[in-house]
Amino acid sequence: MVYVPGMQRYRMDVSYDGTDYAGWQVQPNGVTIQEKLEWVLGEITGGEVKVHGSGRTDQGVHARRQIAHFDLKFVKCPKAIRTGLNALLPPDIRVLRVRRAAPIFHARKSAIEKEYRYFIWNGDIVPPFTARYRTQVRKPLDTASMARAAAFLEGKHDFAAFTANPNREVESTVRELRQLCVVKKGAEIVIKARGEGFLYKMVRSLAGFLIRVGEGAVPPAEANTILASRERTARVPTAPPQGLFLWNVKY
Amino acid sequence: MVYVPGMQRYRMDVSYDGTDYAGWQVQPNGVTIQEKLEWVLGEITGGEVKVHGSGRTDQGVHARRQIAHFDLKFVKCPKAIRTGLNALLPPDIRVLRVRRAAPIFHARKSAIEKEYRYFIWNGDIVPPFTARYRTQVRKPLDTASMARAAAFLEGKHDFAAFTANPNREVESTVRELRQLCVVKKGAEIVIKARGEGFLYKMVRSLAGFLIRVGEGAVPPAEANTILASRERTARVPTAPPQGLFLWNVKY
Repeated sequence: MVYVPGMQRYRMDVSYDGTDYAGWQVQPNGVTIQEKLEWVLGEITGGEVKVHGSGRTDQGVHARRQIAHFDLKFVKCPKAIRTGLNALLPPDIRVLRVRRAAPIFHARKSAIEKEYRYFIWNGDIVPPFTARYRTQVRKPLDTASMARAAAFLEGKHDFAAFTANPNREVESTVRELRQLCVVKKGAEIVIKARGEGFLYKMVRSLAGFLIRVGEGAVPPAEANTILASRERTARVPTAPPQGLFLWNVKY
Repeated sequence: MVYVPGMQRYRMDVSYDGTDYAGWQVQPNGVTIQEKLEWVLGEITGGEVKVHGSGRTDQGVHARRQIAHFDLKFVKCPKAIRTGLNALLPPDIRVLRVRRAAPIFHARKSAIEKEYRYFIWNGDIVPPFTARYRTQVRKPLDTASMARAAAFLEGKHDFAAFTANPNREVESTVRELRQLCVVKKGAEIVIKARGEGFLYKMVRSLAGFLIRVGEGAVPPAEANTILASRERTARVPTAPPQGLFLWNVKY
């Protein structure tokens, strides 16, 4: 380790199974991913280290690739940091990569695009090996209708009707949904959502609505009416967390 | 339900994540898969039901498809039995199928072939979503050497050197290994073993030996020497259970 004046910023790519965690962000009740990472970084650096994620993930939500940054007072080989972190972390949290970053890099503010994927198991029996990562829907879903509804939602809209607690949003509820598509492979249905940013519980709200469309409970064009209403109602349920993955973050 | 004189035999296909179980067979310490199935069958039929598997799986070993049979005093719709079982079983045990079977069908005695697969993650970081189902080997494995060793082991041999506690085996330790192959896909290495029957811990012993060959610790042709010795030594370690799946049983 070499002491340098000021700080060295590091970027890390993290993958986690969110099943046994109370989400990403440190909070009074339950163990969180951020807390685990901060504790382990503290252990290997001997100091207090704050970890900043690209965004929160809720309780039970997984990340194929979450990005975070942290600062150290010492320059340490990134690969050694990664090895040290993985040696102390439980197997359901893995640091995929650590690299030095410029001081202006910020995991949340520098992000230019995020991708989420929501996995549905549309059948009677979820294989035990993926049960932690799939939302089961027994009723056969009409994916053509879901795809039509998704096409209405794609683009720049006011998504106030597709966020939980819209009052919590201080700023605009307008977002650009660059991609929202529905892919079916056997019993598995994947909803892919890509955009610059997402509102609180927006992906799970989109998934909840698309599932209702797939069940035939509402016609696909209802998407336009709901968007225009700008009001969250029972027509948009929040889909369960275990099917959701933060898939990728771009910078 | 219709009462019939005598019994109706049923065959069921079961898939399970063995991580949290003390193996298949009922035993005094720890919860087993067989015990769970017997308890749930008792709940839905109101009687005591004995479940017979195609064979035991050890603590921590998984099954993509294990076969079992049981007898009921009543004829009940197989699909209703399946639905009832899955409603009461935890998500890490799933009954894939139930069907009526002839009284002479026996899950263990009628089996004509079994296939096991052993999954190795040959890399530094096991993805959190498959960590429960992979044995990690950090040192790069030479799969060409492993394949050569596997070719020596294929066929009809006395596998006394590849079973744990050979004294427990009352009968012959000769088995026909119809297929033993090594397949590599990226960081994942799969050992496929197919045969009429296997000795106690035989697949994990074969995997343990093949891993040593892949690491360069022993040359592939050592397989012949070990087979001929008919003696279990430290040259054949037992690979950990979590990489092993009972993949299929044929009748």
